[in-house]
This record gives sequence, structure tokens and C-alpha cells, in this order.
Amino acid sequence: MAAINLQQKLSTFSEHWSPKIVADFNRHDVMVVKAQGEFDWHSHPDTDDFFLVLKGKLTIRLRDREVHLGPGELFVVPQGVEHCPVADEEAHILLIEPRGVPNTGDEKTAATKTRI
Amino acid sequence: MAAINLQQKLSTFSEHWSPKIVADFNRHDVMVVKAQGEFDWHSHPDTDDFFLVLKGKLTIRLRDREVHLGPGELFVVPQGVEHCPVADEEAHILLIEPRGVPNTGDEKTAATKTRI
Repeated sequence: MAAINLQQKLSTFSEHWSPKIVADFNRHDVMVVKAQGEFDWHSHPDTDDFFLVLKGKLTIRLRDREVHLGPGELFVVPQGVEHCPVADEEAHILLIEPRGVPNTGDEKTAATKTRI
Repeated sequence: MAAINLQQKLSTFSEHWSPKIVADFNRHDVMVVKAQGEFDWHSHPDTDDFFLVLKGKLTIRLRDREVHLGPGELFVVPQGVEHCPVADEEAHILLIEPRGVPNTGDEKTAATKTRI
């Protein structure tokens, strides 16, 4: 039970698209991730997907349009909606997902979520 | 389904301790609130309480200590833990709570959560 400084947490790793758990909240993982380049198209059948940009810019491609996010902007991808996050330059993101949900929507291709 | 700019949302109201819903996420309300002064001591028996400071400083008093938060710092008050948020000067906070949870822990004294 301590204050969690997101910038400090982000300074402890450098890999992209590898979410790190920083807190627990109502059976959800609160995570930070460094995004750069194009992630996979995926969807989560049973959960919404929460993105808040902390630094940089993130585009969330949907099948019919794009959502552009800068610092202090958030977007919730509704459950079941296919999306593909893209960052031309490194962006820092706060993510919230139910505990144990694979970041690609598929356990076979998902990154391991480490706690930092 | 659009990008949500938290600063823009915060610019649309001025009252303190009156959470405004800006998004839905997995049956939770994602809210912004302007904090100034001392809130009530309260606890939520069935839910954790998520605080992320967007601007300014927030102290969360617990019965045995205080947690000090600045911009980019978050804290999750575990369910059932008594707490009292305090801001000497106006602070802007992102809150997440299950849909319909009273902000004081008690429906009789809770602020109405408006959607903006």
C-alpha cells in the first residue's frame, strides 16, 4: 500500500509491448506499457480494453476508423471489437485489464505480464 | 466510441468533490473529479478505490499514515480500508469505481455522478 509513480515504474524497463503490472484493482491488473511500432490486430471477447496515454501518441486502429490519442487522453475499446494499437514513436500507456487476460486476446501469442 | 480528453472534460465544470463520469469500462465508471479541501472519512466495503492524480497534489489519509500523491502517481485503497482524501489546493484526479458506488461509501451522503 504505497504511492505508485508511473514515470518511475516506466524507467525500469525498455522493451516494447510488454505490459508491467504496477497495481491491483478489483481483480484487474493496472499496467504500464511502452508502445512503439504496430501491435497485432486482436479483440478481447469478454472484456473492455482501457488505454490512457501518459506520454507520446497512440493510434488505435479499428476496422472502420482510427482513434488518435495524446497525453491525458483515454479510450475504452469495447469487448469484442477488433483493434490494433500503433505508435510511430515510443509512447507510454496506462492499461487496465481483468487479471490474467492475454494482451493479444490469445494466450498462445500473449506477452507475460510481469509485476514491477 | 471516441477519444476522451481529460483536461477538456475537467474544463467543463468547477465544483469540488463532484465526480463526473467520462467513460464506461467493465461495469465501472471512469470519472474525473476536482478535489479541494478535506473530503469525508469513508470506506467502501465491496470495492477497491482507484486514484490517479492528473494535476496538483492529493493526500490520502489512512488511519495509520498518509499517502502523498502528485501528478502521474496512483494509489489503490483496498476495499474496507477507511480513508480521507485531502487537497490543500485544487487537484484533478482520475477515479475508477464500480458503476453506482456512492463516493462517500454511503448513498445518503453521496454526490450524484453526472456524465459529461
